[in-house]
Amino acid sequence: MALMTGQQYKDSIRDMDINVYLMGKKIENQVDHPITGPAMEAVALAYDLAHDPEHQDRLTTTSHISGEKINFFTHLYRDVDVFVKRLDLMRDMARRHGMCHGARCVSGNIANGLESITFEMDKKLGTEYSKRFRTYWDRVQREDLSVGGYITDPKGDRSKRPADQENPDAYVRIVDEKKDGIVVRGAKVLISGASIAHEALIMPTRGMREDEKAHAVSFAVPTDTPGLTLVHQLPSPDFRRLAPDAAGSDFGNERYGVYNACQIFFDDVFVPWDRVFMCGEVEYTNTLVGRVSPTFRCVTSSCKCGHRDLLLGGSAVIADYNGVGKAGHIRDKLSEMSFESELSYGCLLGAAQKGYTTESGNFFPNALYANVGKYQASKALWFCARMGVDISGGLVMSMHSQKDMDDPVIGPLIEKYFKANPEVSTEKRMKMMRMMEYLTGIGNILVAESSQGGAPTANQQMVVNAAMRSQLEEYKKRVLELADIQD
Amino acid sequence: MALMTGQQYKDSIRDMDINVYLMGKKIENQVDHPITGPAMEAVALAYDLAHDPEHQDRLTTTSHISGEKINFFTHLYRDVDVFVKRLDLMRDMARRHGMCHGARCVSGNIANGLESITFEMDKKLGTEYSKRFRTYWDRVQREDLSVGGYITDPKGDRSKRPADQENPDAYVRIVDEKKDGIVVRGAKVLISGASIAHEALIMPTRGMREDEKAHAVSFAVPTDTPGLTLVHQLPSPDFRRLAPDAAGSDFGNERYGVYNACQIFFDDVFVPWDRVFMCGEVEYTNTLVGRVSPTFRCVTSSCKCGHRDLLLGGSAVIADYNGVGKAGHIRDKLSEMSFESELSYGCLLGAAQKGYTTESGNFFPNALYANVGKYQASKALWFCARMGVDISGGLVMSMHSQKDMDDPVIGPLIEKYFKANPEVSTEKRMKMMRMMEYLTGIGNILVAESSQGGAPTANQQMVVNAAMRSQLEEYKKRVLELADIQD
Amino acid sequence: MALMTGQQYKDSIRDMDINVYLMGKKIENQVDHPITGPAMEAVALAYDLAHDPEHQDRLTTTSHISGEKINFFTHLYRDVDVFVKRLDLMRDMARRHGMCHGARCVSGNIANGLESITFEMDKKLGTEYSKRFRTYWDRVQREDLSVGGYITDPKGDRSKRPADQENPDAYVRIVDEKKDGIVVRGAKVLISGASIAHEALIMPTRGMREDEKAHAVSFAVPTDTPGLTLVHQLPSPDFRRLAPDAAGSDFGNERYGVYNACQIFFDDVFVPWDRVFMCGEVEYTNTLVGRVSPTFRCVTSSCKCGHRDLLLGGSAVIADYNGVGKAGHIRDKLSEMSFESELSYGCLLGAAQKGYTTESGNFFPNALYANVGKYQASKALWFCARMGVDISGGLVMSMHSQKDMDDPVIGPLIEKYFKANPEVSTEKRMKMMRMMEYLTGIGNILVAESSQGGAPTANQQMVVNAAMRSQLEEYKKRVLELADIQD
Amino acid sequence: MALMTGQQYKDSIRDMDINVYLMGKKIENQVDHPITGPAMEAVALAYDLAHDPEHQDRLTTTSHISGEKINFFTHLYRDVDVFVKRLDLMRDMARRHGMCHGARCVSGNIANGLESITFEMDKKLGTEYSKRFRTYWDRVQREDLSVGGYITDPKGDRSKRPADQENPDAYVRIVDEKKDGIVVRGAKVLISGASIAHEALIMPTRGMREDEKAHAVSFAVPTDTPGLTLVHQLPSPDFRRLAPDAAGSDFGNERYGVYNACQIFFDDVFVPWDRVFMCGEVEYTNTLVGRVSPTFRCVTSSCKCGHRDLLLGGSAVIADYNGVGKAGHIRDKLSEMSFESELSYGCLLGAAQKGYTTESGNFFPNALYANVGKYQASKALWFCARMGVDISGGLVMSMHSQKDMDDPVIGPLIEKYFKANPEVSTEKRMKMMRMMEYLTGIGNILVAESSQGGAPTANQQMVVNAAMRSQLEEYKKRVLELADIQD
Repeated sequence: MALMTGQQYKDSIRDMDINVYLMGKKIENQVDHPITGPAMEAVALAYDLAHDPEHQDRLTTTSHISGEKINFFTHLYRDVDVFVKRLDLMRDMARRHGMCHGARCVSGNIANGLESITFEMDKKLGTEYSKRFRTYWDRVQREDLSVGGYITDPKGDRSKRPADQENPDAYVRIVDEKKDGIVVRGAKVLISGASIAHEALIMPTRGMREDEKAHAVSFAVPTDTPGLTLVHQLPSPDFRRLAPDAAGSDFGNERYGVYNACQIFFDDVFVPWDRVFMCGEVEYTNTLVGRVSPTFRCVTSSCKCGHRDLLLGGSAVIADYNGVGKAGHIRDKLSEMSFESELSYGCLLGAAQKGYTTESGNFFPNALYANVGKYQASKALWFCARMGVDISGGLVMSMHSQKDMDDPVIGPLIEKYFKANPEVSTEKRMKMMRMMEYLTGIGNILVAESSQGGAPTANQQMVVNAAMRSQLEEYKKRVLELADIQD
Repeated sequence: MALMTGQQYKDSIRDMDINVYLMGKKIENQVDHPITGPAMEAVALAYDLAHDPEHQDRLTTTSHISGEKINFFTHLYRDVDVFVKRLDLMRDMARRHGMCHGARCVSGNIANGLESITFEMDKKLGTEYSKRFRTYWDRVQREDLSVGGYITDPKGDRSKRPADQENPDAYVRIVDEKKDGIVVRGAKVLISGASIAHEALIMPTRGMREDEKAHAVSFAVPTDTPGLTLVHQLPSPDFRRLAPDAAGSDFGNERYGVYNACQIFFDDVFVPWDRVFMCGEVEYTNTLVGRVSPTFRCVTSSCKCGHRDLLLGGSAVIADYNGVGKAGHIRDKLSEMSFESELSYGCLLGAAQKGYTTESGNFFPNALYANVGKYQASKALWFCARMGVDISGGLVMSMHSQKDMDDPVIGPLIEKYFKANPEVSTEKRMKMMRMMEYLTGIGNILVAESSQGGAPTANQQMVVNAAMRSQLEEYKKRVLELADIQD
Repeated sequence: MALMTGQQYKDSIRDMDINVYLMGKKIENQVDHPITGPAMEAVALAYDLAHDPEHQDRLTTTSHISGEKINFFTHLYRDVDVFVKRLDLMRDMARRHGMCHGARCVSGNIANGLESITFEMDKKLGTEYSKRFRTYWDRVQREDLSVGGYITDPKGDRSKRPADQENPDAYVRIVDEKKDGIVVRGAKVLISGASIAHEALIMPTRGMREDEKAHAVSFAVPTDTPGLTLVHQLPSPDFRRLAPDAAGSDFGNERYGVYNACQIFFDDVFVPWDRVFMCGEVEYTNTLVGRVSPTFRCVTSSCKCGHRDLLLGGSAVIADYNGVGKAGHIRDKLSEMSFESELSYGCLLGAAQKGYTTESGNFFPNALYANVGKYQASKALWFCARMGVDISGGLVMSMHSQKDMDDPVIGPLIEKYFKANPEVSTEKRMKMMRMMEYLTGIGNILVAESSQGGAPTANQQMVVNAAMRSQLEEYKKRVLELADIQD
Repeated sequence: MALMTGQQYKDSIRDMDINVYLMGKKIENQVDHPITGPAMEAVALAYDLAHDPEHQDRLTTTSHISGEKINFFTHLYRDVDVFVKRLDLMRDMARRHGMCHGARCVSGNIANGLESITFEMDKKLGTEYSKRFRTYWDRVQREDLSVGGYITDPKGDRSKRPADQENPDAYVRIVDEKKDGIVVRGAKVLISGASIAHEALIMPTRGMREDEKAHAVSFAVPTDTPGLTLVHQLPSPDFRRLAPDAAGSDFGNERYGVYNACQIFFDDVFVPWDRVFMCGEVEYTNTLVGRVSPTFRCVTSSCKCGHRDLLLGGSAVIADYNGVGKAGHIRDKLSEMSFESELSYGCLLGAAQKGYTTESGNFFPNALYANVGKYQASKALWFCARMGVDISGGLVMSMHSQKDMDDPVIGPLIEKYFKANPEVSTEKRMKMMRMMEYLTGIGNILVAESSQGGAPTANQQMVVNAAMRSQLEEYKKRVLELADIQD
C-alpha cells in the first residue's frame, strides 16, 4: 500500500498500452504528447499534494474499507462532512490547475452509488455484488489508481428507448454471457479523463425497463483492455498545441490547460465476473442513477466555482495590469461575479445539508438543491466569462503570438505599445491576457463545459420541475385554505 | 409552566395597556381592531399548532435552560439541526398564514446572539449579563411569551456616526444611570410584531465606537412599559380594512393578511438592572451584530420561500380557474419560479451547512451564504410576483368589490360574465384573484418587504463584496501562478 | 369647433347620466367622487395643456379630416412622425400625472385601425363604413370628446372559440338587426377610462371565423346610452380613498393617483347604423386586430417609460432625502434602471422606424418590435420598481398616516426621529416616501398594469415566437450553407 | 469607374506589398494564406453580390458625390433610410458569411463623420479639408476600394491624458510637418480588416485638449505605405488553421471563418497634404468622436444580429439533427433567443428613428439608443451562445477531428455511434456540431467580440449614464410636483 507520486502516476500510465487515437493516429506516449500531457499534469498534482506536508491532511484520509491511509480522491462519501470536504477540495484544486482531473473525479461518485446499490441488491436478491465491488474498490484505494467514470451513452434516436433502438448498441449492452464473465458492446461518449486513467468504471446512463436487462450493466475494466478504442476530442482551441510554432504564452494555461475527454468504443469486450457489479437488475437502475446524478452534479459544479475564483482573480489582475484596477465599475463587476458564483456554491452546500444516508452508510446530497445549484453553476460561469471579457478589454480576443513577441523587430514594437500600467511589464500583461482568453472560454472549453458537463442544463430544469410538481398540490391546498375556498 | 393557546395569547395581549396609535388614535383593543387583529391571528396560529397533535412535534421542543417543554419559537439555536428545523418551520408557517409572525420571530435571533455574547462578556469582564439574560429568557420560555425584536434605529444623518449626530437620540441611548437601572431614550423603526408582543427585546443596530458607550445598550421591557409610544404603520393596501363597506374577498388574505409593524419611541424609559444585557461594552457590539444579522437574514428569507410557495400554488390554481392550467408557458413559468425560489432556500441551507458554534454553545450560520441567500430571496420574490401577475391576468389589478358581487343587479352580471373554466364557480375565481392581488404585493407589502426586511439588499451586497475582497488575493495568486507570472 | 378646457371636460361628464357603480352603489357625481375624481384630473390635464402657450404646439394639431385645429389626442397616425410624436407625448404626459388617461388614449389606436379597415371594406365590398366612421370621428375631433376604447371581452371558456361558448355572450355580439340599427349584448372588461369618457368605441378582441359573424362588430355609443352598466374596479390600494380619515400624503399621488377602469355590461344596447363600423365582415377582423394591437402596445408602453422616468426621478430624490444621494451603488442602480427603460423605448421607436402605411394613409408600427418593446416595458417597470423599493428603504412599505403626522403628540415624535438629510424637512421625506410607495406599485396598480395592460406578456411572447418561426427557415438555410451541408 | 468582382479584389490585394506579420513571419501572399484567406473571402462576397442580379439593388447605389453607381459599402449616410438599409444589409451579410468584413465596414462610419466635420471646419476656419476629403472618397468610390477604419490607440497609461503619457506615441501623433505633408508616429490596435484593405483611414480615438494638437489628426494612406507594420492577431481557435492535419469540418465555418484584425505600427509615416483631413483642430475632435462612435456602434451591432440569426438557425438545425427538434424546451429557448436579439436590433432601429442630419447632409443616429442597443447586442449574443451550447449538447465542445472521421477504422465507429436522428447522416451532424462550436464562440472570437468590438460595454454604460443624468433633473422636478413638494 503506497500513495503514488505524480511521477509514479505518469510512469504507470506510460507503461499501459492504452488504445487512444487523435487525428486518426494512435498516441504512443500520452505523457509526452502535447494534447494528453497537460491533462496528466492536472491529475499528477492531486497525487503530489498528498505527499506535500502542507496539503496532505486534506488530500489523504483513512479508508472505511481497509482502515488504511488513502488518497482522498478514492474515498467514498460516508457522511455529510466528507462530502462537503470533497466539494471544498474540488474548488481548491480547480484554483490550482484551472483544469479538470476527471481521471479521478467522476468514478468516486459512481463508486459511492455502487457501494450503496450493491449492498441493497445483495440484501434483497442474495447476490454477491457488494463483496465484489468492495474488493475491487479496496484495490483501487490500495494501489492508488485513477479510475475513469463512464456514464453517458451515445443514445441514438432520442425519441426511442434503449430497447427500441434501430442500432441496439446505442446503449452499452451485454451481448454474451460466459461462464467466467460477460461480453459487452457499445460506446460511451464525452468521458472526462478516460485515456489517462488506469481503470474504467461503467454504469448505465439512465433507468432501464424490464425488457432492457441487457443494458442494466455495471462493471470495471483496465483502460488497456483489448477491444477498447478511445478517440480523443479535439475542440478548436486545442489545435494550437499541434501548431508547429506555437509556444509559451500562446497556450494561456500552459502547464495544465488541455481538457482530456474521449469517445470510447467497446467492441465485444470481455469482463470477468469479479469486475461485474450489476448484470440485468433493471429494477435498481433508476435508484442508482437517482443517487449518482445529483452527487456528480454537485461535484462537477464545485470545481466550476474554483474556475470562477480564477476568473475573479484574473479579472482583478488584468484590470490592474490595464491600469484601471481601482475603477468603480470594475469593483461592481467583481462583486456581481462573486454573488452569482456563491449563489451556486451555497446551493450545493444546501444540497449537502439536506442530504441523506442509506443503510449501507453512503451519503447522498438532496437532488433538488443539487440540480438547482448545478444549473446556477453554469449560468454563473457564463456570466463571469462575459464579465471577464468585459474587464480584459479587446486584446483578450486579439492577441498576437509568442513568436511575434520573440521577434527582434516586432517584439520591441509590442513591448513599446502594449505597456499600460507603468508598474507592469508588457510581457506580464500579454501572458495574463492569454490566461483570460483561456479562462473566459475562448481558449478552452471551460465555459461550454459548464453547460454540458454533468448533464446538460435541461436535465437540471427537469429535476427542478419534477420537484416542484411533487409539492405543488400542497402549495395549492394552502393557498385555497387561505383564500377560504372549498374545493 | 404551560404552553399558551392562541386564545390565551390574545387574551393576554388584550389585558395589557399597550400605548399603540393608528391614524392619530390609540387602539384600545388590538384583538378586535381591523388592523391589528389579523396580525394577531398569525401569531395565534403558532400558539395553537403547539397543541395540535399533528404539529406539536415540530412546534414544541425541550429547553436547554430549564429542560422543560417549550414552544419552538422561544428556543435558541444550539446546533445546526435546530437552525435548519427553524428555517423549515418558517417556510411551512408562511405557507399557512401568508403573513409575518414577527412578534415571535426576530427576538429569537437576538436572544441567540445575546446568549453567546453575554457568555463571552462575563468570562472576560466578570460581568453578570449571562445569568441575567438566561433568567430572563427562561421566564420567556416558561410563560410562553411573544417577544418583539427591536434592531433598527432611525439613524438620522446617514453621513454621520451615532456619536456625531445633531439629534443625539437618532440612535437609542442611555441618558441616565440610576442605582436600580438605566434610563433610555430614542426610537426603533419598522419593528415587526412590536405592538402585539408581550415584551420588547432591544439591541444596537450597528457596531459602536469607543465614544459611543451610551449607544452600546441591550435590554428588555414589557411592551406596556411607561414611556413607550408605538405608532402602527399603514401602507396603502391596509386602508381597505378601514373602509366602511369593504368585506370578505376584498381583503385577499382575509383572516391573516395585515402586517404588523410599528415605529416605537422611548421617552426616558426606565429599565431595571435585571433586564439590562449590555451597558456600554462597545467592543462587543460589532460581534453581536455580526452574529445576529446573518442569522436573522436566513430566518426572514426562509418565510419568503413559504410566500413563494403560496405564489406557486396560487398561480397554478388561478391558471386552472382561468381555464389555461395546462398551457405549456404556464408550466414553464412555474418551473422558473421554483428555480429562482429554491436557489435562495438552497443557499440558506448552505449557510447553515457552513455555520459555526461559539463556546457558549450557540450556533450561527455562515455570513456570506446568509447574505447571498437573502439577496436572492428578494430577487426571487419580485420575479415570482411578476410571474404571478402574468399568470393571473388583468383581473388581478382590476377587481370589483365584494359589495358589487353581493348586489342583486350587479352580482348576477359578474356571475355571468366572469366565469372562465366551466368547472369553477365565478365566486371562487374572484376570491382567488384577490388572493393573487395580495400575494403579488399589490394588495400587501410582501414583495416590498422582501427587499427591505432583515436589512435592505445593499447590505447583502456589501457583505458579499467584503467576503469576495477577503479572498481575492488568494485567487489572484492562483491565477498568476497558472499564468507563470512572477509578481 | 372649440377645444375644451379641463373644466369644460369635467362639466360635460358631470352632465351625463353614466350608469357607473362602485361597491354596489351608483356614483352620482364622478367629478367629486374620491375614486373617479383623480382619474378625471389626469384627463383634464390633457385638455388644459392644449390651451397652455408652452404646450399647445405639442397638444394640438391640424385634422386631416376637417383641416381644423384639434387636440392631439383625437388625431390619427398619418405618418411615422405623428406616431413618434404621440409616443413622446405619452411619455411626457405620464411624467406629469403619473397616471393613465385611458379615456382619450386607447380609442385613437382603434380609430386609426378603423379608418384603414373601413376604407378597405368599402373599396372591396362597396359598403359605406368609411364615410360613417370619418363622419363620426370628425365629430369627435370637432367636439373634442373623450372616447373610451373597448377591446377585451370576458372570453369565457378559453379552450373554446367565440362561436362554441356555452355562454354565447362571452364575446360581444349582435343579437338583433333592425331597420335603423343593431342590438348588441355582452361585456367588455378592464376598460381604462371607460366611465369618464363621453363615448365608447368598440371593436372585436380577436379575429373571427366564418361562423362568428355576430361577433364581428364595431360601433360607438355615448357612455350614457341605455342598457350600459359600468362597474368600477377597486384594487386594494384605492380603498384608502374611501377610508374616513385618510388624507393628504396618505394618497401618494394625491391629485391624479387613481386608475379608472371598469367592467362594462351591454344589455341589448341599440346602436343606430351611423355608429356601426363593422357588422359581420369576419374576414377583416384579423387584419383589424393585427393593426390595432401593435399600435396600442407601443402607445401603452410609451407611458410606462414616463412612469419609469418618475421612478428614476423619485429614486434620486428619496436617496437624497435619505442622505445617501451620492453613494456609488445608488448611481449604479439609477443607471441600470435607465438602461432597462430605454431598451424598451428604443425598441418602440424601432417599431415606428419599421412601420408601414396602408392605402388609406394610416400608419402602423412593425408588429415584432412593438411586441418586443412592450414585453421589455413590463420587465423594465418591475425591475425599476424593485430598485425603487431598494433605494427608498424600509419606510416605503411602513409609513404611518397623515393623521399621525398631524397629531399634536405623535407628530413631533415623527418630526424628530424621521429627519435624515439635515437639509430636508421630515414632512418632505414622508411625502416622497408615499410617492415612492405609489410609484413602486405597492400603492397603485402601475407595476402590475405593466404586465397586463395592452395584453398580457404571453401575447407578446407569442408574436415574438411567430415572427421568429417565420424567419427560421431562412436562418437555417444560411447556417447549412455555411456548414457546407446539402440538405 | 467599375465595380470590382471578388476575384479582382483578391488580385488587387495580392498585388500590394503589405507589410503584415504573423508568428514572426511576413505573410507573402494573403490570398492563399490559411489565416488571411478566409477573411478575404468574406470581403470578396460583398464585391461579388454587387454583380449578382438578385442582390445588386441592395449592394449598389448612386454616389451623392459623383452621381455614379457605386458599391453600397462605400456609400455615406445621407438620410435615415440609407442608414437603416445599411443596418439591414449588415445583418443579412453576416447571415451569409458568419464573419466580419471590417475591411469595408468601419471606414464608412468614419468617412460619414469626416464628411460632416470637414464641412464644418472649412466653413468656420476657411480650411480645405472638405474638398480634399471628398476628392479622396470620390476615388475610393470610383475605384471601389476597401478601406480599413483605424480608431483605437494603445492608450498607454489609462490614468493619464494623451499629452501626459510617458510614451508620447501611445496615441498616434504628428511628429513633423513638412512642406508637402506630415509625418506620423504611433500605433492603432484591434483594427478589423486592416491587412486585407487597400487603404487605411485614420481618426483620433477620443476628444483632444488644447495641448494635444499633435494628436488631433486624421488622414488616409495606402496599406502598403512605407513605415507601416501590421501584426496579425492569432486567437487560440485560429491556430487550427496552422495545424498540419486539420481539415474540412474541423474549421466549423471553413470558407469564411477567420477574423482579420491587426495591431498596426506607424514608424514615421509620411502623409501628403491631400490625404490629411484634420491637423491640429482639437476643438473638432469631440464632435467627430461623438458622431462616429454611435454610428459605428449601431453598425457593428447590426451584424451581431445576423450572427444571432445564424445561432438561431444553427440551434434549430442541431436540435433536429439530435432528434429533439420538436421538444417544448427547445422551442422556448429559441423564442427567448429571438426576444433578446430583436430587443437589440429594435433599439438600433430606434436610434435611427431619433437620428439627426447635419448641415453637411450627413445622417447620424441617436447616441443614447445606439449605446443601449449596442450593450444589449453583446448581452444577447452571450445569452444566445449559452443557449446554443445548451441546445447542441456536449458534443459541441468535445468533437473529434476530421482525420478521425476519415480513418478507415475510427471513421465507421463514429458513423455507427453518432447517428441520432435516423433521417440525418452522422457526417451532417458532425459538421453542424463544429459549426455550432464556431457560432457559440468556442471556435472563434465572435461572442467575445460582441463585448469588445465597437468599444467595450463599459463605454455604452457611460453614455447611458450620462444621458440619464442629463434628464434626471427634469424627472426629479416632475416627481416633486406630483408629490406636491416645494423645493
